Amino acid sequence: MATVKLWTDEEVAANPRVKAVFDDIRAIRKTDFVNNFWRALANQPAVLERIWTSIKQVMIEPGALDPLTKELIYIAVSTVNSCTYCTHSHTAAARAKGLTPEQHSELLAVIGMAAETNMLSNMLQVPVDAEFDVR
Amino acid sequence: MATVKLWTDEEVAANPRVKAVFDDIRAIRKTDFVNNFWRALANQPAVLERIWTSIKQVMIEPGALDPLTKELIYIAVSTVNSCTYCTHSHTAAARAKGLTPEQHSELLAVIGMAAETNMLSNMLQVPVDAEFDVR
Amino acid sequence: MATVKLWTDEEVAANPRVKAVFDDIRAIRKTDFVNNFWRALANQPAVLERIWTSIKQVMIEPGALDPLTKELIYIAVSTVNSCTYCTHSHTAAARAKGLTPEQHSELLAVIGMAAETNMLSNMLQVPVDAEFDVR
Amino acid sequence: MATVKLWTDEEVAANPRVKAVFDDIRAIRKTDFVNNFWRALANQPAVLERIWTSIKQVMIEPGALDPLTKELIYIAVSTVNSCTYCTHSHTAAARAKGLTPEQHSELLAVIGMAAETNMLSNMLQVPVDAEFDVR
Amino acid sequence: MATVKLWTDEEVAANPRVKAVFDDIRAIRKTDFVNNFWRALANQPAVLERIWTSIKQVMIEPGALDPLTKELIYIAVSTVNSCTYCTHSHTAAARAKGLTPEQHSELLAVIGMAAETNMLSNMLQVPVDAEFDVR
Amino acid sequence: MATVKLWTDEEVAANPRVKAVFDDIRAIRKTDFVNNFWRALANQPAVLERIWTSIKQVMIEPGALDPLTKELIYIAVSTVNSCTYCTHSHTAAARAKGLTPEQHSELLAVIGMAAETNMLSNMLQVPVDAEFDVR
Repeated sequence: MATVKLWTDEEVAANPRVKAVFDDIRAIRKTDFVNNFWRALANQPAVLERIWTSIKQVMIEPGALDPLTKELIYIAVSTVNSCTYCTHSHTAAARAKGLTPEQHSELLAVIGMAAETNMLSNMLQVPVDAEFDVR
Repeated sequence: MATVKLWTDEEVAANPRVKAVFDDIRAIRKTDFVNNFWRALANQPAVLERIWTSIKQVMIEPGALDPLTKELIYIAVSTVNSCTYCTHSHTAAARAKGLTPEQHSELLAVIGMAAETNMLSNMLQVPVDAEFDVR
Repeated sequence: MATVKLWTDEEVAANPRVKAVFDDIRAIRKTDFVNNFWRALANQPAVLERIWTSIKQVMIEPGALDPLTKELIYIAVSTVNSCTYCTHSHTAAARAKGLTPEQHSELLAVIGMAAETNMLSNMLQVPVDAEFDVR
Repeated sequence: MATVKLWTDEEVAANPRVKAVFDDIRAIRKTDFVNNFWRALANQPAVLERIWTSIKQVMIEPGALDPLTKELIYIAVSTVNSCTYCTHSHTAAARAKGLTPEQHSELLAVIGMAAETNMLSNMLQVPVDAEFDVR
Repeated sequence: MATVKLWTDEEVAANPRVKAVFDDIRAIRKTDFVNNFWRALANQPAVLERIWTSIKQVMIEPGALDPLTKELIYIAVSTVNSCTYCTHSHTAAARAKGLTPEQHSELLAVIGMAAETNMLSNMLQVPVDAEFDVR
Repeated sequence: MATVKLWTDEEVAANPRVKAVFDDIRAIRKTDFVNNFWRALANQPAVLERIWTSIKQVMIEPGALDPLTKELIYIAVSTVNSCTYCTHSHTAAARAKGLTPEQHSELLAVIGMAAETNMLSNMLQVPVDAEFDVR
């Protein structure tokens, strides 16, 4: 149950602005499957265009971090933000990019450990060491 | 201004249980510097011991993710949890493990992008695609 | 699946303290429909009374912000807090108060953008400019 | 104490890519003052350009929500995300756009109330009413 | 550096509505010290009155949970919400109500452990067992 | 729909490392029922062992806080982290340890109140009083 309707392929085909983004998603990802996130964003063409453009720049263009590492970071952020949808979609994306069960297990451990020590630091209000300053 | 006092080296030396952990931290990390997080945890020896043991298992023992990748995930979690201390300490740790400015820049972009799409998914309450199910 | 039972109209009718609040909700909102939030809170009459009194003061009494603007802020907070129920209920409330698709689209964009820059600021630990001080 | 260095005007002037963004910020905002957020982002020119372009689209271009309402939403998101920097900078921005003390007071009340009921809903795990579905 | 000014005792004395709340705070708490939270809220008398009334009902009136337990819960919520001010003020309040170092240590451990398992559950998206249903 | 498969008793029986933990869970809790959290963690035996060991230390060993109080704190953290699974499982655990409806009601009130004042403090950026310092 979403707070907006999810666009079907027929509705997408009837809106040139939305269709252009969906066509690009399909071409870049080399699959006909377009997941619900984009079908929900289709209600807001300006947001749809901006987010897809940013996703291409940040997640798809080659850069200093490899694609799987980026997915691990995405899962970490989504987990802390309790985003059910994003946790599912980026775990699937990570698997498609070669995530092994051992890597998944370590990701789980690191996220859990980080959250635990975040709470300890926040509760004790630990002051930042001068040694960490960027000179 | 912490909510507990930070232990000095003299106070640590006078408490065998705390001293044993601090000695191990110094030996493992090959440095005399022990940061404030541990000096705050020293007030709770049982927590200090358990957390240091876990940190060694999760962050220091070799595994399926390389040490720098683990630090990137740690920074991501700490950023979303607004943990000032952890963001500073793990950014310093990542730099010590070779983080380049280009990698830092991409980490920033991925964390920001993930948080943005998390909010879009949460606000639109996008239903999880059946395709993401683990069969 | 709630962690408490949801009160039916029959159960409400049998408890004068809860019934008084439900009667007031129906009278103020001019509808017989009382949503599940109140049916869950009915288990805790003291909380039910206090929250309904506060909601009336904050959300219903006329003031310096118009009712639709208040709903937009409510959706923003609920989205960041990953509150599925509140995101649904306040999106419905905003629509009932005239939210247009264009406004919904901009709300989505602003919430996403804010969350993104929040993460950038938190990760970079940007110091507050002296210019922002309240003199 | 930031996790990156803040660029001075001299450093900005020496980097054409960063300078172009800073020039645009100054021209659009009609002020010579550029706040620390952008001076921190200057370390990552690609992120700097993308974020400034998005901010212009989302926050500055005229649309369906007035500029002050957008700032109120920005403050709400920043408050829940515990973003000290963003709360300060967007409260200052809202004041510059005419925020009255009465509006500030109501914003405070709505954010607090929303967070409170978010917690009640999350703790009781209230199921979403069928009436809120988007048909 | 707050986003509003903090009221001095002189300013409080000059505003009967604010003065009435401050007088009650001093009478109930049996101390002349009024902490900054209330001096910031003084800018919004309606919020000040409503929050103080609620705090008295929830935190001060005798009930089913003892005062120290309520403070522990308050610290837990404040820690997860990264509220620096509240973590400090409620740790001080817990100490004033008899918090022992051993209890503080266990509180720290429980909050950290809970946050860690929250992340594991969120990342793995563990489905709720039917056994937990409230019949 | 989880992001990993949930282990059946047959699969558990076939893996000695996982079986050892499950046997211990059943022995310590004196019940044959093992909830889904552990069935999901079974995919990561190292994490499973570490978390169960920590849970025993933190939540089960006798200490300075009674078992019910620990569950209340666990529910508070889980509520703020929007952890659906943990909120359900620890509410069930609290009931099994004697949580009364009156205590549940007060827990609800305190969590809601704390979240509300957290937001007020964060939005107003209230500076910490010198009186709260630990000398």
